[in-house]
Amino acid sequence: MSNCIVAQSGGPTSVINATIAGIVRANQMNPIYEHVYGGLNGIEGILQERFVDLTDMSDEENRILRQTPSSALGSCRYKLKRDNVADFEKLFSIMEKYDVETLFYTGGNDSMDTVAALSEYAKAHQISGRRFVGCPKTVDNDLMITDHCPGFPSAAKFIATTALQTWLDVNVYTRQEVFILETMGRDAGWLAASACLSGHVDVLILPEQAFDKELFLKRVAACVRETNKCYVVVSEGAHYGDGTYIAAGEATNDGFGHAKLGGAAKALEAMILDSGVANRCKVQDLSSAQRCHASEQSLVDVTESYELGMAAHMRSMDKEFTGKMIGIRRREEGPYDVEFFAVDADQVANYVKHFPEEWILPELKGITEEGYNYLRPLIQGTPEIIMKDGLPAYVTPYYMR
Amino acid sequence: MSNCIVAQSGGPTSVINATIAGIVRANQMNPIYEHVYGGLNGIEGILQERFVDLTDMSDEENRILRQTPSSALGSCRYKLKRDNVADFEKLFSIMEKYDVETLFYTGGNDSMDTVAALSEYAKAHQISGRRFVGCPKTVDNDLMITDHCPGFPSAAKFIATTALQTWLDVNVYTRQEVFILETMGRDAGWLAASACLSGHVDVLILPEQAFDKELFLKRVAACVRETNKCYVVVSEGAHYGDGTYIAAGEATNDGFGHAKLGGAAKALEAMILDSGVANRCKVQDLSSAQRCHASEQSLVDVTESYELGMAAHMRSMDKEFTGKMIGIRRREEGPYDVEFFAVDADQVANYVKHFPEEWILPELKGITEEGYNYLRPLIQGTPEIIMKDGLPAYVTPYYMR
Repeated sequence: MSNCIVAQSGGPTSVINATIAGIVRANQMNPIYEHVYGGLNGIEGILQERFVDLTDMSDEENRILRQTPSSALGSCRYKLKRDNVADFEKLFSIMEKYDVETLFYTGGNDSMDTVAALSEYAKAHQISGRRFVGCPKTVDNDLMITDHCPGFPSAAKFIATTALQTWLDVNVYTRQEVFILETMGRDAGWLAASACLSGHVDVLILPEQAFDKELFLKRVAACVRETNKCYVVVSEGAHYGDGTYIAAGEATNDGFGHAKLGGAAKALEAMILDSGVANRCKVQDLSSAQRCHASEQSLVDVTESYELGMAAHMRSMDKEFTGKMIGIRRREEGPYDVEFFAVDADQVANYVKHFPEEWILPELKGITEEGYNYLRPLIQGTPEIIMKDGLPAYVTPYYMR
Repeated sequence: MSNCIVAQSGGPTSVINATIAGIVRANQMNPIYEHVYGGLNGIEGILQERFVDLTDMSDEENRILRQTPSSALGSCRYKLKRDNVADFEKLFSIMEKYDVETLFYTGGNDSMDTVAALSEYAKAHQISGRRFVGCPKTVDNDLMITDHCPGFPSAAKFIATTALQTWLDVNVYTRQEVFILETMGRDAGWLAASACLSGHVDVLILPEQAFDKELFLKRVAACVRETNKCYVVVSEGAHYGDGTYIAAGEATNDGFGHAKLGGAAKALEAMILDSGVANRCKVQDLSSAQRCHASEQSLVDVTESYELGMAAHMRSMDKEFTGKMIGIRRREEGPYDVEFFAVDADQVANYVKHFPEEWILPELKGITEEGYNYLRPLIQGTPEIIMKDGLPAYVTPYYMR
């Protein structure tokens, strides 16, 4: 009996570990692999033969792993380049050395490209018995074909919850006040849009539309005139028509030393104060917390991430199953439910799924009912969290053991 | 039978509403007041006769109020000045008009000063039947005499949880990385210190000690040399020996336009990158979220805040009870438990309780075991949260109804 490796790549999420937990558990239920190895720090660590053995993980550890945010196996930004033959040869020789038949790789765009490249290489070089399966994850929710990506719903829930809470916070004084919440999302506005679930976003700025400063200031002024407040949400990737990020633009215009010092929210704050449409602004940049604040894990998300891992394992019984990613399809009828399906990884790699233009209301007024109908089912349910001394119990990262 | 008013002042917290809920509930159990009015936006709104009637609040609303962060009655920064006789006369005439015997005021330093000033005024002018009771709240935990302030434990729990989660996040890559978490705390380091509960703070910078840039960079360099990472926590109030905030200092030195653009963490980031002790830094400023992210309400905190409101109501049966604040005393023996006591509000007003110097480890290495023993019991327990459509259910602020 051969073995398998699971590994993680790209930015962490609140539920990425649940996919690993699902693969490990599925193999305990139906041991088609003798060992389930964890490859540390993605392809980077696999090339250095850095493995842990996850095969006999206890049920308790599996449960705690599912509630642990970030990447318990460590991650990497290392991208296998198709012309780097040395890397490919090394990887296949390591798979042979450890008798690894299947590599499960969780990640985003780049990781799906890695899955596609490796399976193509195997096919082109007629290497049999080495297979590659992708499991999607990304808080950005920008992968094609799959209805959504594990990790996004929990990040969306954290953002919506924080928007609701900070909206309550910013309203307590009678004074005039503008609040600007900045979310991740360099190319796609899914995360910023999810703040609308709070029900209190006055102005929403997404990377899907060219930023119009005049319109923005007009909208803020109108809100402030009406309610003395304005709640703004901006995606870090918001940009002008020519592609310049609003952060970069403002940083330059205002003569700051480094563009890195200005986020999109800070840039908007400067516009508001400079123009005089409001005299008080507060900024909250959710930064790293939005992708790892597992306190807001959505039960839907963590369950799907776990089951997706199981589905990947089950489907890998088919000896022809390689170069595929497991996607999530939402049932068209009835209450929210999903099924898993397989798609060629190269159909997903290197594309970006944007927040649909037709779900964006005009004049920065937020999202349509279709947008809400898409988002709302994803954030439902709260998993029971095992606590330890007042804080959530998390596994020690495997790369630190 | 006369009436009472409850009102809120200063910055919001995750559990300030539980004190209101406790007062309302105590009056339902033992109706010593005919009406429990909510004064909107603190003294500011009371002077404008803006009231709601909370007397018959349903049990369900009371439960949801307890889990609602921020100030459901609205807040103010308005400070009654002792020489502003017009305000005092107006307030007493409004109390007479609405037959209000007792004003319960939740807040920090300034609010306790208001409680003291009003009861002194009544005494000096021989006005009987008008009484003033303070209920402490502040995420900063800087009030004297009371063991701690409701609101602080939940903020501490959010900070510790987020520190744990972002520490997991920052470690996933093998690359060199410094992470800097900025907390509130302009004068006192309680909030920043609570990040140590995560178990992963390498460098802690509190306002209680003059900032030593050389020592700071030395410590970061040592951490990076040893582990390739460094997790830094800084209080927004960190300052040099001459009192200059490190944020302000760096903002000026680097030639930025506005000091408001530079937080303490950003200033530290600039120091690290400029000095070359590390080449990669990430910053997370917890900003407003830390005082309203009620997803991390500590059960200890919300229970104490509720019971403190009840205790204030019960003690106000005594017709001599005025000019007092209800404090929390930790039992000295046995497992963590508290009792409530009364203290003259003027003993609390206008002082700051600092994080004890003797609990600070040398060389920015964090806090002592005494510090942990103080903090740890406060963050225990997770209240059951009533959810609504995937997000926590919160009351509509009374000032918006």
